[in-house]
Amino acid sequence: MTDFTDSQAVSRLSSGPRTFFRLPYRPVGELTAEDRVDAVIMGVPIDGATGYRSGARFGPEAVRAASTLARFGSRERRLVINEVLSVVDGGDVHVVPGYHMRTLELIERGVDAVHTVGALPILVGGDHSLAIAELRAAARHHGPLSLVQLDAHRDVLDDYFGVKHFHGTVYRRAVEEGLIDPATSIQIGMRGSVPKEDLAEDDLGFTMITSDEAVALGCTELAGLVADRVGGTPIALTFDIDFVDPAYAPGTGTPEVGGPSSAFALRLLRELDLRNIRTVSLVEISPPYDTADITAHLGVAVIFEILAMVAASRSAHA
Amino acid sequence: MTDFTDSQAVSRLSSGPRTFFRLPYRPVGELTAEDRVDAVIMGVPIDGATGYRSGARFGPEAVRAASTLARFGSRERRLVINEVLSVVDGGDVHVVPGYHMRTLELIERGVDAVHTVGALPILVGGDHSLAIAELRAAARHHGPLSLVQLDAHRDVLDDYFGVKHFHGTVYRRAVEEGLIDPATSIQIGMRGSVPKEDLAEDDLGFTMITSDEAVALGCTELAGLVADRVGGTPIALTFDIDFVDPAYAPGTGTPEVGGPSSAFALRLLRELDLRNIRTVSLVEISPPYDTADITAHLGVAVIFEILAMVAASRSAHA
Amino acid sequence: MTDFTDSQAVSRLSSGPRTFFRLPYRPVGELTAEDRVDAVIMGVPIDGATGYRSGARFGPEAVRAASTLARFGSRERRLVINEVLSVVDGGDVHVVPGYHMRTLELIERGVDAVHTVGALPILVGGDHSLAIAELRAAARHHGPLSLVQLDAHRDVLDDYFGVKHFHGTVYRRAVEEGLIDPATSIQIGMRGSVPKEDLAEDDLGFTMITSDEAVALGCTELAGLVADRVGGTPIALTFDIDFVDPAYAPGTGTPEVGGPSSAFALRLLRELDLRNIRTVSLVEISPPYDTADITAHLGVAVIFEILAMVAASRSAHA
Amino acid sequence: MTDFTDSQAVSRLSSGPRTFFRLPYRPVGELTAEDRVDAVIMGVPIDGATGYRSGARFGPEAVRAASTLARFGSRERRLVINEVLSVVDGGDVHVVPGYHMRTLELIERGVDAVHTVGALPILVGGDHSLAIAELRAAARHHGPLSLVQLDAHRDVLDDYFGVKHFHGTVYRRAVEEGLIDPATSIQIGMRGSVPKEDLAEDDLGFTMITSDEAVALGCTELAGLVADRVGGTPIALTFDIDFVDPAYAPGTGTPEVGGPSSAFALRLLRELDLRNIRTVSLVEISPPYDTADITAHLGVAVIFEILAMVAASRSAHA
Amino acid sequence: MTDFTDSQAVSRLSSGPRTFFRLPYRPVGELTAEDRVDAVIMGVPIDGATGYRSGARFGPEAVRAASTLARFGSRERRLVINEVLSVVDGGDVHVVPGYHMRTLELIERGVDAVHTVGALPILVGGDHSLAIAELRAAARHHGPLSLVQLDAHRDVLDDYFGVKHFHGTVYRRAVEEGLIDPATSIQIGMRGSVPKEDLAEDDLGFTMITSDEAVALGCTELAGLVADRVGGTPIALTFDIDFVDPAYAPGTGTPEVGGPSSAFALRLLRELDLRNIRTVSLVEISPPYDTADITAHLGVAVIFEILAMVAASRSAHA
Amino acid sequence: MTDFTDSQAVSRLSSGPRTFFRLPYRPVGELTAEDRVDAVIMGVPIDGATGYRSGARFGPEAVRAASTLARFGSRERRLVINEVLSVVDGGDVHVVPGYHMRTLELIERGVDAVHTVGALPILVGGDHSLAIAELRAAARHHGPLSLVQLDAHRDVLDDYFGVKHFHGTVYRRAVEEGLIDPATSIQIGMRGSVPKEDLAEDDLGFTMITSDEAVALGCTELAGLVADRVGGTPIALTFDIDFVDPAYAPGTGTPEVGGPSSAFALRLLRELDLRNIRTVSLVEISPPYDTADITAHLGVAVIFEILAMVAASRSAHA
Repeated sequence: MTDFTDSQAVSRLSSGPRTFFRLPYRPVGELTAEDRVDAVIMGVPIDGATGYRSGARFGPEAVRAASTLARFGSRERRLVINEVLSVVDGGDVHVVPGYHMRTLELIERGVDAVHTVGALPILVGGDHSLAIAELRAAARHHGPLSLVQLDAHRDVLDDYFGVKHFHGTVYRRAVEEGLIDPATSIQIGMRGSVPKEDLAEDDLGFTMITSDEAVALGCTELAGLVADRVGGTPIALTFDIDFVDPAYAPGTGTPEVGGPSSAFALRLLRELDLRNIRTVSLVEISPPYDTADITAHLGVAVIFEILAMVAASRSAHA
Repeated sequence: MTDFTDSQAVSRLSSGPRTFFRLPYRPVGELTAEDRVDAVIMGVPIDGATGYRSGARFGPEAVRAASTLARFGSRERRLVINEVLSVVDGGDVHVVPGYHMRTLELIERGVDAVHTVGALPILVGGDHSLAIAELRAAARHHGPLSLVQLDAHRDVLDDYFGVKHFHGTVYRRAVEEGLIDPATSIQIGMRGSVPKEDLAEDDLGFTMITSDEAVALGCTELAGLVADRVGGTPIALTFDIDFVDPAYAPGTGTPEVGGPSSAFALRLLRELDLRNIRTVSLVEISPPYDTADITAHLGVAVIFEILAMVAASRSAHA
Repeated sequence: MTDFTDSQAVSRLSSGPRTFFRLPYRPVGELTAEDRVDAVIMGVPIDGATGYRSGARFGPEAVRAASTLARFGSRERRLVINEVLSVVDGGDVHVVPGYHMRTLELIERGVDAVHTVGALPILVGGDHSLAIAELRAAARHHGPLSLVQLDAHRDVLDDYFGVKHFHGTVYRRAVEEGLIDPATSIQIGMRGSVPKEDLAEDDLGFTMITSDEAVALGCTELAGLVADRVGGTPIALTFDIDFVDPAYAPGTGTPEVGGPSSAFALRLLRELDLRNIRTVSLVEISPPYDTADITAHLGVAVIFEILAMVAASRSAHA
Repeated sequence: MTDFTDSQAVSRLSSGPRTFFRLPYRPVGELTAEDRVDAVIMGVPIDGATGYRSGARFGPEAVRAASTLARFGSRERRLVINEVLSVVDGGDVHVVPGYHMRTLELIERGVDAVHTVGALPILVGGDHSLAIAELRAAARHHGPLSLVQLDAHRDVLDDYFGVKHFHGTVYRRAVEEGLIDPATSIQIGMRGSVPKEDLAEDDLGFTMITSDEAVALGCTELAGLVADRVGGTPIALTFDIDFVDPAYAPGTGTPEVGGPSSAFALRLLRELDLRNIRTVSLVEISPPYDTADITAHLGVAVIFEILAMVAASRSAHA
Repeated sequence: MTDFTDSQAVSRLSSGPRTFFRLPYRPVGELTAEDRVDAVIMGVPIDGATGYRSGARFGPEAVRAASTLARFGSRERRLVINEVLSVVDGGDVHVVPGYHMRTLELIERGVDAVHTVGALPILVGGDHSLAIAELRAAARHHGPLSLVQLDAHRDVLDDYFGVKHFHGTVYRRAVEEGLIDPATSIQIGMRGSVPKEDLAEDDLGFTMITSDEAVALGCTELAGLVADRVGGTPIALTFDIDFVDPAYAPGTGTPEVGGPSSAFALRLLRELDLRNIRTVSLVEISPPYDTADITAHLGVAVIFEILAMVAASRSAHA
Repeated sequence: MTDFTDSQAVSRLSSGPRTFFRLPYRPVGELTAEDRVDAVIMGVPIDGATGYRSGARFGPEAVRAASTLARFGSRERRLVINEVLSVVDGGDVHVVPGYHMRTLELIERGVDAVHTVGALPILVGGDHSLAIAELRAAARHHGPLSLVQLDAHRDVLDDYFGVKHFHGTVYRRAVEEGLIDPATSIQIGMRGSVPKEDLAEDDLGFTMITSDEAVALGCTELAGLVADRVGGTPIALTFDIDFVDPAYAPGTGTPEVGGPSSAFALRLLRELDLRNIRTVSLVEISPPYDTADITAHLGVAVIFEILAMVAASRSAHA
């Protein structure tokens, strides 16, 4: 494994092929438990099951490219991530554009391999429809999970154009399949115009916090609320980049104006301490709509904060 | 009238020709009172009378395209707009590029037709110079109006390059013609460097709240202030997209940095209850300068919130 | 039907909702034989079954927008299209993103409706995978067709990622299903690096002319060659926008450098006289990658030349 | 006058405020005959009287910025322009956006000042509607001119939206006012779809060469044809940037696909020897639609070739 | 000196060559004390010594272009800048791309000329590596300075790729050379992932306020803190445009997400009263990554607020 | 070494970290003769020594990303490259931005390592200033070389801003150092305005063919001319992407309009048979100015054609 992590000695410009955070490249299919890897960042280059803008298939590429600028030290957590965690770039899962069911199987297989070696999968989408595959793999290894969803949309529609699996239906499916437990889950950041059925009472049992409510609460209180909600259960953390306002993340498929800032989102991640995190996804970065790569750079910062959170949790319990 | 509003059954991608919010298309010239239309969204594709960037002539097209993503349910107002209001796309008014006076006549005629059938005109510009035509039509039907202006600039210069009608002079002209009453009007969001004469006392009698003052007050207090100011008078609401910071609305003609966020602007609209609203304009969206259509999507959200406000007012008084 | 075709009197800016060429909007589902429509331009907003860049789902929207600039008179054919032909905008066919098989059924149904009323369907994609549905509908009404394909790629792979229906496999499938006859078909414009199997002899029997060969032949000789090849058979004409160099059509999914110019492509279309044309498709315009809409404008010119060819043929035989 | 022309000693990056070709800045209002200036490049920042895309008002700025890359030596003409000619940047003429008639007066006054000091005006637009003002000034000093027009459109419509002065009507007006003589004029590069009236015989008497015809003739023969046509008359040369294909000039208002290349256009200019050239305009560069400033750089090359032609003519007759 | 400051009478579009704020152009090499100039805005077109994105070499050009939109009146300071101060555009300093040491000498020479005539230099970069040259010149005339740095990064690395002078090492070098006094200096706005050595205690003695801390403090308290820190010492104010979030300033070399808004930055500048300001730099605006010029417009507003601060200080002490 | 070359089985989207052509990644420092590698594609991420636009530092990244679309079969050469040649991605050489002399040493060291293992280096820049380092390494192993340069500019200036090593001086330096022999070298594609000294007779002895001359000759004759010129000498082939017109390669530092098409350039490469090729460079791709990555895709095609030429030469002599 070539190691690019000695970032000071090597110019960012000279990184060669761009891996996530200039980390060693270890395709998930070749990982073994002996590798003692703590976390695997992997790409899921899909955008077929989306109702508006496509382009998220190039999300993994854009995040890899932007991540050459990142370092591993966190001022707030007071740690250096790669001194605490062993993290690798697991490559991209295979996909079959236009064949969503087949693609879901391939994603699930890739994620399963990560759980099998005891590592935390961090999926970089791709659109949000990957979540059902992600959760099937996670639940097989860890049982039903609590969902912590930062997102402008709930993604709990029943169907869409007559089909059941879509980026807007994924968490209803996950509940139906018993992969997540709404009673210990929380959805944060919702806003915008909605179809009529979304005005009815939620029949699934999620806690839902709108974008305006989240900002009014502030990061500290919101983080406390999340901690209370999930308790000691295993956690699936998902960050849809459209959680933030499109001013901060123009490169996304279904932009929803009126959202919080990047600063708010990152501060919230720094306040969270989700010790039992079992699976992570960062979704809906659509590079063709990005400007100056700012959405990709935000994606990098989101992964950085999540890695720092995991590292802090490891340090605290070592 | 073809109806696209059954949005769940029809893919947003398959909307065919893009009307505002996938609403039925009814050219204003063909509207009659029997249509019982409550509001007419219409385009005003002009950008001639602008001192800096042009491009706003494509504002109506961009807003129509972006609006295919919108739905009609409002979480905050707890209503579905098209269950309360009958809204149509009234097409675009005719314009003669380079001939501002002639264009103002054509705009006025188009808006007049909407008032004649008792509907609320919602003009999608186009640059702000359309307002004098908008207000002439409105005042003919409703008498002098109170102006509620969300804008980075006051637009009350006396002349510009030696001419009287321009996007920066429009509200001085409106006062001179008796179309709006400054004593019951309010201008919100002003900021940036100004010509010397703007430092003198306002000779027109408007209440003016700068951008910084607005944010310091907060949406609730600001909405109260607006309500106090306008009282029970008929209202002209105008939203210049440069009210928000160019980070949120890069696609505009005279960007003014240092403004509020989209979230602030939309929250303010949700706090307003302008029962006597008689004419609405959304102006200065300039698509050639937009990125990832975020300005157009903000424009859609602004119209959505205004429609929801009107719908709520109707519901409350039904 | 509102008629925008009196283009001189109405500003292009004031066209209202953008239909193809400002033509009347008649959804294909509502067409009847009594409408006596000669040609129907319809959108197919898909991009799922593509192996590289997506975005073609917005092709129909971009072509509609750009077509407001077009007129109907052809200097070379010496006719005014809408004096000879009755053409309408048929709207967009319904699609289910991520579900290619289901989408193909919906496309076929839409195209079938056009053949049923005796009109020529002109499909505006969307990616090239739509062709199998297009040809199934056409062959049902007209029997096996001769393919005239202007394209940088042959699209005759056997499978791709283990599936059979994809934008790169579509004409092999069409041959297998008996929808087109390779012996009377011709593929023009191929270039670029190819997989190994493409170096073997063609097992399907197509005539294939590379991009360099086409330019060396010149438009007149090439048009003669096409005429000889297709004879009096019914014809399916397909124009993949990547036929031209990406300098002329940057907005496409699989750009192939080294191609001919727009001038060459349009000149070729003007030289063709495909009297028995039965179905037309214009595919792979991907607006997120377009610059200054030049790809969309080229798409408009391609449709214009095809309409002029059909009109000339009608005139000649009237 | 600060002189930037010693280009080798000063970095292009350090040019300070960008003048045309880093030439001295001499506002036209301050020029006197004692300055012995041969040519004045001046900006005309207008785009009001255009029927489709605006943005050309920033043409002068973009051409100034791009021209910092240019040098003064011509390989083909074997001369160094600023050793033969004294050229200055004359600044921009004043304009009143939205008031076309008033703006035409201001342009005419600016151009007149250049003729008065015996220099050649080179107008950098701005849209083509400036030409009527340009020609009024030129004809006052030089009598009726022969027009050499490189352009995708003839610009001889009778009216447009009911008005007479527009970028598409300008040369019909010029003929009516006796400013140009069609019998010694030539229009080159026309193409694209046209309104019905353009299919009729030309009633004005221009020689018109389509884009395809021009390319078929080749530059040398075409240049001979122009020379024959204009003979020894005074000449107005106008270069509409849409003469070339939008692949080469995406930054323009009414892009017309299917045109010649930049190489063809520049080669043609190098073949021309228009000794009696009296006024020059370069129009329709619209920077908001430009990509990587290639249209602006083409504009610079066009002016360079025209200056070189004028310099060669001076050298030959010195 | 041509004076463009009478902005009302002259259209912004007709400004001719773009100087900073349409001010008179006076190359620094030609300035004399008799000119009685108070401040000189000058460009430093460099980007060589940067570790990630280049492009800042075009920063001066972009700021000049955007500044045509600015006026001179400040509502908050209640003054008109050019009634109090005499300001000129000093042109660009010479640079030698690829030769950083030589370039630093040239910059220092240019800045020195401004101090020599008793004026305040306002450097518009270019990347931050210019600061060592700026400070050498300033310290020669004013002795060691207090640094007020608004920036996402501290720029105090020891070396980078084995060299000592780089945009990330500049303030460590300045301390080593005795140009600035850390004990009276303050760094504000830091955030993002950092190399390990940045987690250690600061060995230089700067006060450092992170971005989150700054926002939590608020502008008024922060301004007080700055005032306390610098006391009556001579001040070097530097504004790295990446101080704000990339949503507000996408056009920059090392974007750091999670920063404050433009409104926050400008409000902070309006709260500052740095009477003894002796040198100013605005750096890291990289136009190739800008969108709709919003970063350039922010740069203009930053200079405007700094000029207003200086003018207010002069007024108060006049 | 992970091998991505089985391209049919693996989706292009799922390539994981992007290597050149999905080839195995072997950093040049780790290569040994036992690897029996035939060619090494390596990145040189520099742009400091450029006089106009920067950004070429991201050239290697962009070419890697675009190359995922490429295959290895050549229709014209009738071979599959990776069946004939063993090619790897050698990573990027180290660079020190702003320190050109130091950077040249690092480049030379990297290239030397490739020659040492007997492989052909293919450098992907970065700006053209890399050539002096490239040629020093090549000449050490192969003696003086014949230069085949496809470029819009000769790059033989004597100095620039007072320094000797720059992207515009590189081939004069190479002659002076005896690295290339002008008598057997050829420069093709020159055009545009030039400084005065370029009009004098060439003092170096190169054969120079302008862009217009090259197109007039045609590819076949031109290839013959090159073959005659270089004879049996060792060859350095360099392709500056600005050889083609900026319509085809907008993403470059010093765009020169009026150039040939991509088709011409690729056809020329296919006609060449440079058996003794010893070093290759592809330079001046500047991604920040690219549109839709078309310049990067052209870069990929150029490398493809060169690899095919080398493969054909090997096949012929095996």
